[in-house]
Amino acid sequence: MIRVSIIGSGNVAQHLIQAFSKTTDIELVQVFARNVASVSHLIPIEKTTSDFGELKDVDLTIIAVTDDAIEEVSKEIPFSNKLVVHTSGSVSIESLDCKNQQGVFYPLQTFTKSKEISFEGIPICIEAKNEQDFRTLETVANAISNTVYKINSEQRKALHIAAVFVSNFVNHLYQIGNDICIENDLSFDILKPLIQETANKILMLSPNEAQTGPAKRKDTQIINTHLNFLKDDNQKEIYKLLTKSIIDNGKKL
Amino acid sequence: MIRVSIIGSGNVAQHLIQAFSKTTDIELVQVFARNVASVSHLIPIEKTTSDFGELKDVDLTIIAVTDDAIEEVSKEIPFSNKLVVHTSGSVSIESLDCKNQQGVFYPLQTFTKSKEISFEGIPICIEAKNEQDFRTLETVANAISNTVYKINSEQRKALHIAAVFVSNFVNHLYQIGNDICIENDLSFDILKPLIQETANKILMLSPNEAQTGPAKRKDTQIINTHLNFLKDDNQKEIYKLLTKSIIDNGKKL
Repeated sequence: MIRVSIIGSGNVAQHLIQAFSKTTDIELVQVFARNVASVSHLIPIEKTTSDFGELKDVDLTIIAVTDDAIEEVSKEIPFSNKLVVHTSGSVSIESLDCKNQQGVFYPLQTFTKSKEISFEGIPICIEAKNEQDFRTLETVANAISNTVYKINSEQRKALHIAAVFVSNFVNHLYQIGNDICIENDLSFDILKPLIQETANKILMLSPNEAQTGPAKRKDTQIINTHLNFLKDDNQKEIYKLLTKSIIDNGKKL
Repeated sequence: MIRVSIIGSGNVAQHLIQAFSKTTDIELVQVFARNVASVSHLIPIEKTTSDFGELKDVDLTIIAVTDDAIEEVSKEIPFSNKLVVHTSGSVSIESLDCKNQQGVFYPLQTFTKSKEISFEGIPICIEAKNEQDFRTLETVANAISNTVYKINSEQRKALHIAAVFVSNFVNHLYQIGNDICIENDLSFDILKPLIQETANKILMLSPNEAQTGPAKRKDTQIINTHLNFLKDDNQKEIYKLLTKSIIDNGKKL
């Protein structure tokens, strides 16, 4: 039985606590939270602490705090020569204090506190500095997820950037769609089946095969009608740049 | 029983033929296709024609052809004073020859021939010039879809533009995510659960509530790391513009 502790009480920490609580292969020993009340609905109070000095030297300590705090938190850990990992897509494995064995346990997903999510379908990207630590991370990751990937730091950075494009930026395009609906007295609900299908198509087709629309068809008449219709300069600029990018992409193929 | 014919054999036409074939409330009388072989797997050959002169004057004729061809096709129709509609998000209702009663029957979805889709969940946006025609379109739309909206021409144009943002442009961001993965020896599959969850979140949260990521947090350090990492000028430019747009959007709220 691998003994695991979690440091943090944010979105990722809370979802990890829930995931480990459901599995029987991993023992969730302790959760560190500055305010233990924030996790009291997820774990018995006697398993929580807000004092770094009380942290137990378990097999794996997962630091799930904001990127900026990772380095400092790793220094506060009172024990050494144990495996300590962070969960960030952007922070170097070297940012962790080297008194412990460094690693990364990066679940690639967008977490929202108010929305439950099953960890099984979430890819976990792991990185370690030796084979034994890697095996430990793999066992822990497999206990909560069906897809575990070995990813090095450079790849993790690329993956995080790709995730910004396909998630953060995509959501912002939903925001623009929503704004256009509101301005024209339309319900955003009309767009939701299209949003779902656009995401579903990608499960069966490559993005290139799935591409449709006026830019793909190089339909300059429709493109100009749309640009004339858009009054917001920012929306207009995004429309122009993405249309150009789709057209240029077609030329490359 | 409302009698319907379809002109066209492309994506939308084929999906409509399948949808009407499944319902018992609507009689699909005839399909016009320049090459009848292209729809022979969907409808008995005796119900197809490639001769405009053979078109029967049914209750509703649906022109599901490319935008450019709608006006010309509507002129070819041999009968008059019947309801004739097109399925386009961009073409004016007035483009249809006024010898027949004009209308619009716009299913808001991204159609791919190779991918089956249930019409029930697809919003159909309808427009007509009188109450009786509207009722006919409403009955036909309700026979194949659970969500039918009354949308005027100006709103339809706005909706089509919003659809370009949330579908065509979103798919292009998937393409960029895919390109970044390939360049860094990563499987695009790693991103798929994130893509699905990003689309699913929008069913429960507003796009503003669902927004996460470095731009939302105004994390300039990460943003700069990402911009330094991106070597492709086009990807860099899109990253900059969408990041700026997310930050500006945060200021407006």
